[in-house]
Amino acid sequence: MENLEEKQLTTTEYYRNSFLRVTEDDVLLPNQLEAKRVVVHHPGGVNLIVLDEKNRLILVEQYRYPVGRLTLETPAGKIEPNEPPIVTAKRELEEETGYTCESLTMVGRFATSPGFCNEYIENYLVLHPIKLEQEVQGDEDEFLNVYHLTKEEALAAIEDGRICDFKTVYAIQYLMLTQRW
Amino acid sequence: MENLEEKQLTTTEYYRNSFLRVTEDDVLLPNQLEAKRVVVHHPGGVNLIVLDEKNRLILVEQYRYPVGRLTLETPAGKIEPNEPPIVTAKRELEEETGYTCESLTMVGRFATSPGFCNEYIENYLVLHPIKLEQEVQGDEDEFLNVYHLTKEEALAAIEDGRICDFKTVYAIQYLMLTQRW
Repeated sequence: MENLEEKQLTTTEYYRNSFLRVTEDDVLLPNQLEAKRVVVHHPGGVNLIVLDEKNRLILVEQYRYPVGRLTLETPAGKIEPNEPPIVTAKRELEEETGYTCESLTMVGRFATSPGFCNEYIENYLVLHPIKLEQEVQGDEDEFLNVYHLTKEEALAAIEDGRICDFKTVYAIQYLMLTQRW
Repeated sequence: MENLEEKQLTTTEYYRNSFLRVTEDDVLLPNQLEAKRVVVHHPGGVNLIVLDEKNRLILVEQYRYPVGRLTLETPAGKIEPNEPPIVTAKRELEEETGYTCESLTMVGRFATSPGFCNEYIENYLVLHPIKLEQEVQGDEDEFLNVYHLTKEEALAAIEDGRICDFKTVYAIQYLMLTQRW
């Protein structure tokens, strides 16, 4: 089929909070029929791939309410309004890990679930993080523990399910394929 | 911090369609304060990592309304109510690619965006797909083109942005790391 585009006819908002909106749109399909499309509108986020001075990956343990469990994930966070993603990345690095850095490299930008959500995550590589002398205050309703894992420990954590999300698995695969990790 | 758990106090539904629900819950934080948590409830999906007889990755091109563009993705689909994920996987393989298979191997199960959504995707590896003689009818409102890419073509498609989602990049990296692709 040549033209696969779907055109918006109407949009109705069902939910809105400080960072997320949910709409249901009527769209015109390529075959000229109509369909409904739900869209979760998200500001996007950053994902931090950080190796410490001992070549260990820095991960954070959090309770993730939507999945009802503790997870071990790469440090990450939502992009604030008008914030350049690289600023988000440095801010989240400082708030979540107790490290800062002189340079970050954007290594890829991927959608999390393009079937119903417009969230993109920008992935940043940090190879020489610098330990902060003082802790930076993060979000008031965010509680986390920081861990530093060797490659073997990270692979074991995928295997046993403590690491359970795509952006963290992507980070580990990325390091193995491009950084000789 | 020891106990990071957040406990549900109330839940309010804001949106529901045939496969997705959105709620906002009041929760009790580890520090005994309260906060609101939005949850996008999703039935979960499957992701198909399929190499054809010429060792090329089978991908589908679709218009993805939420991100407003064509994407090149691994074949995938939502789990229907009471459907075992492996049945979803074989069904989507047949509907989206024109291939079937004798065996599928589940190689990992990962959340797409655990900060606001409970969607998990089960990833299935298919190494010896069998071409179907007759096309299988897929979803009525789904239009797609099928492509078979070599490793070099897939890496170029990540680079130029045609491949733009985590599950597809995961699939490519998985093949490179575990299947000598």
